[in-house]
Amino acid sequence: MYTLYIANKNYSSWSLRPWALLTELGIAFKEQLVPFGAGSNWDEFRQFSPNGKVPCLVDDGLTVWESLSITEFLAERHPGVWPEQSAARAWARSAAAEMHAGFTTLRTQCPMSCGIRVRLHEVGPALKADLARVDELWRDGLDKFGGPFLAGDRFTAVDAFFAPVAFRVQTYGLPLSEASQAYAQHLLQTRALRAWQQQALAEPWREPGHEAACLAYGTLVADLR
Amino acid sequence: MYTLYIANKNYSSWSLRPWALLTELGIAFKEQLVPFGAGSNWDEFRQFSPNGKVPCLVDDGLTVWESLSITEFLAERHPGVWPEQSAARAWARSAAAEMHAGFTTLRTQCPMSCGIRVRLHEVGPALKADLARVDELWRDGLDKFGGPFLAGDRFTAVDAFFAPVAFRVQTYGLPLSEASQAYAQHLLQTRALRAWQQQALAEPWREPGHEAACLAYGTLVADLR
Ligand SMILES: N[C@@H](CCC(=O)N[C@@H](CS)C(=O)NCC(=O)O)C(=O)O
Ligand SMILES: N[C@@H](CCC(=O)N[C@@H](CS)C(=O)NCC(=O)O)C(=O)O
Repeated sequence: MYTLYIANKNYSSWSLRPWALLTELGIAFKEQLVPFGAGSNWDEFRQFSPNGKVPCLVDDGLTVWESLSITEFLAERHPGVWPEQSAARAWARSAAAEMHAGFTTLRTQCPMSCGIRVRLHEVGPALKADLARVDELWRDGLDKFGGPFLAGDRFTAVDAFFAPVAFRVQTYGLPLSEASQAYAQHLLQTRALRAWQQQALAEPWREPGHEAACLAYGTLVADLR
Repeated sequence: MYTLYIANKNYSSWSLRPWALLTELGIAFKEQLVPFGAGSNWDEFRQFSPNGKVPCLVDDGLTVWESLSITEFLAERHPGVWPEQSAARAWARSAAAEMHAGFTTLRTQCPMSCGIRVRLHEVGPALKADLARVDELWRDGLDKFGGPFLAGDRFTAVDAFFAPVAFRVQTYGLPLSEASQAYAQHLLQTRALRAWQQQALAEPWREPGHEAACLAYGTLVADLR
């Protein structure tokens, strides 16, 4: 049985990715949630994860870290992780890798926090550029592969990689095209994302650093937790 | 035949990764070098690459962008891209993904520039932390899989992902353990990296932004170009 180390469901966008993938594909795993402490979690996460970060997957003594590597590890063992058709698979991997290394303004200015709603003071040029690229990428996938998921009619790893963006769209009311808004809504309605959100809302932890980061560029308008 | 879009060999660390992989594995490809202009290259690179960046691989009308996605695309088509043994492959993918998303201080303070030698003013705490992790990761791979490459006795994609770090070690004289220094030297002696360096030194282009970035944290001690 896999053990998946994750952090707070309310905050941890990287944890969400493999968790949503495993959950949507119906692959059994044991969840090990280690809540964020204040500041760096290096020492604590290093107990189990070589890069001092979550997510981290342990399978029978083998440790796999980094969300993208966990994804490829699962893809070797379970059908359905990536799209079946070769061109869709290449597209999905490119889009997921672009998310893995990029979109730093979106990630900095709109940190994931499933349980709150924030009005941004403004959508500045760098955030606008990130959103334009997300929107373009999503519409490209939806057009090319027919939707309602990014690479076709099934949830695959590329949807898992953009799942945190769907939560950010919801939290910060991010402006996107109609097609992209519909895709974000569709993602939020999956079994995995509904379960994640519900469990996030029930969490007792409020980590001041994460709470402050979510309000660094906007005003709190609702707290559903 | 594959077409691989890259930028200047002197500067473009991401371009080096798939180029070195293709070259070491002896996979035929056509190189398309588009030199960096001043400032953003978004408009120009967007002519061929969806994320406005290099590298970008085109295969028979199919465009694959992002170095990690290009790597997986090649892994589906050619033997030897990743290690054969399953645990080594998982390790290699985790290490490559960690490089893909991380080591931002190393990347910012020591940009790749194959043809110059720089004395850093200091190795500050953030750079020290990045180097400690590189060193730990390299020693872990060399120990676990027996060297002389990171995941065993053959050059695989994880070596391609750390190839730009080997050039940085050479350019900035970065302090690493003896085992890691030996690995960096071994990488620099591969056919691919020797060819890349030779071609980098022969390039006519000097892009002022890149030239300045390489001296933002140190003093020029040699220019071999
Ligand atoms: N590139 C990594 C990113 C992982 C990451 O940054 N995780 C965050 C939590 S979402 C973390 O563990 N940060 C350590 C900390 O906050 O101390 C991946 O894809 O898994
Ligand atoms: N995550 C990307 C990074 C690619 C990247 O940042 N490439 C640089 C050159 S090394 C680039 O094209 N920058 C655009 C520019 O300088 O305008 C990958 O893995 O391919």
